[in-house]
Amino acid sequence: MIIKELIADEYRLIQDEICRGLEQADGKGKFEEELWQREEGGGGRSRVMQNGAIIEKGGVNFSAVFGKLPEAVKKSFNVDSDDFFATGVSIVIHPNHPFVPIIHMNIRYFEMNEHIRWFGGGIDLTPHYIIENDARFFHTYLKQVCDQFNANFYIKFKAWADDYFFIKHRNETRGIGGIFYDRLTPITAGVSWEKVFEFSKAVGHSFVPIYSELINRNKDKSFNDSNKQWQYQRRSRYAEFNLVYDAGTKFGLETNGRIESILMSLPPQANWIYNYEPDAGSEEEKTLNLLKKGINWV
Amino acid sequence: MIIKELIADEYRLIQDEICRGLEQADGKGKFEEELWQREEGGGGRSRVMQNGAIIEKGGVNFSAVFGKLPEAVKKSFNVDSDDFFATGVSIVIHPNHPFVPIIHMNIRYFEMNEHIRWFGGGIDLTPHYIIENDARFFHTYLKQVCDQFNANFYIKFKAWADDYFFIKHRNETRGIGGIFYDRLTPITAGVSWEKVFEFSKAVGHSFVPIYSELINRNKDKSFNDSNKQWQYQRRSRYAEFNLVYDAGTKFGLETNGRIESILMSLPPQANWIYNYEPDAGSEEEKTLNLLKKGINWV
Repeated sequence: MIIKELIADEYRLIQDEICRGLEQADGKGKFEEELWQREEGGGGRSRVMQNGAIIEKGGVNFSAVFGKLPEAVKKSFNVDSDDFFATGVSIVIHPNHPFVPIIHMNIRYFEMNEHIRWFGGGIDLTPHYIIENDARFFHTYLKQVCDQFNANFYIKFKAWADDYFFIKHRNETRGIGGIFYDRLTPITAGVSWEKVFEFSKAVGHSFVPIYSELINRNKDKSFNDSNKQWQYQRRSRYAEFNLVYDAGTKFGLETNGRIESILMSLPPQANWIYNYEPDAGSEEEKTLNLLKKGINWV
Repeated sequence: MIIKELIADEYRLIQDEICRGLEQADGKGKFEEELWQREEGGGGRSRVMQNGAIIEKGGVNFSAVFGKLPEAVKKSFNVDSDDFFATGVSIVIHPNHPFVPIIHMNIRYFEMNEHIRWFGGGIDLTPHYIIENDARFFHTYLKQVCDQFNANFYIKFKAWADDYFFIKHRNETRGIGGIFYDRLTPITAGVSWEKVFEFSKAVGHSFVPIYSELINRNKDKSFNDSNKQWQYQRRSRYAEFNLVYDAGTKFGLETNGRIESILMSLPPQANWIYNYEPDAGSEEEKTLNLLKKGINWV
């Protein structure tokens, strides 16, 4: 039996590990921490780095909250009781370097009672410029993490990420996807609760090695103003996704969550140029053409 | 009896008038026009100015579309038939100068049949810095427009704008409001169809004198980098409102509208600084304190 306090403790340690790893990878920036408490129960540790050497704006947030579910959410779960507990780690990193990708990770656990509880989460990558070798490295790494637990996880969760991180009104994916999963239990996962929890932690532990590698591969590449302009354009699509579609953001806004923590995912600077179209044959166009569901990167 | 083609014709003329007036007020920028057609019926004239002397990004769009309502919309209207006609002019102007306000205007007409038809629209102002004299000028002008038609319009439509242009998750209004109205008919307006139409046109004709005055009052003021940073921050709130709450944007995204026209309202550059708080006693703080519902500006 896994108890919720233990899950929160492990998530806290993962937050620590990731902040240490990111400070090391960045070499200059430091996280600033804010502790916050929620009137209705629980609280969190918001950690944000701004204006690092590589990380322009990055948040690594931990929270463990409990109380009564809002009526709207209760209805959608179709339950009588409304006590809940939720804990998780959420990360979004916006690098200043246009060849270093934006990354997002979330691991979370939700519980109402012994019968209604599950893990969710995922990790996905939004390169301003899709570098195929990096995309292969990223997906191959995630597949190896998944394969330790269930041979079907990667293919299932990769498709789920493709579907989830999709900007419908642009008919493009947010980035190159990754893995996304929700309501993971022994029944849906085909492994024990212990293994589901181990999987959640393994996703968390994969963050530092993956992102450090992607930073190191790209941070010394030179870039020009037109690369920066493209980065700002791509970030505006990221903002569109998060404000229009992202379930976590919507949930946070509707339930009166801590606004600055919810919206820490938004980019430090985003530009909307009207009718922007990349030149034919350009790297920007190549990237656009790869923002599609169903690409096999492994 | 006002026929829909006549309304569309008048709106087209208003679009012309406004584009001419804005080019004159800007002195440098020119609108570029794109004509578009909708497969299901109708089309429009998108006109956008980018990188003018004052207007960094501004759109003045006309459309007149018809066809079958999407199922979701049909349901919300509770009607059997699904033929509709809709025409309107929509404007959002993002100036480069932080002391010139962002402005938005919309006039529109919607018709399903003789019994289901109405006018809607409004005009509202989002100053990066609220200048009280300008706010009084703006609201007084709108009140005078309203008062020509019905002594209750201004107070009713002003309150409606306060409620509509509200960023719930920030607990702040988008700007200083203005007027907003919807489903205006002889019954809801207390005046004839002709007068309702005249009112819609009067709102349209008020745009150039109002915004030219606000440009001229402020465009020669000097500003510094910290004013620009604040402008980028305010623009990010504008983007949040439009992507999270604006009914027109939502409708457009859900019904597969012309994306670049729908999202032309988004700012050319927006910044999200984490936990930004203006200094005590600063002009920025004064502005924040005035982003509230229910302020009487006349």
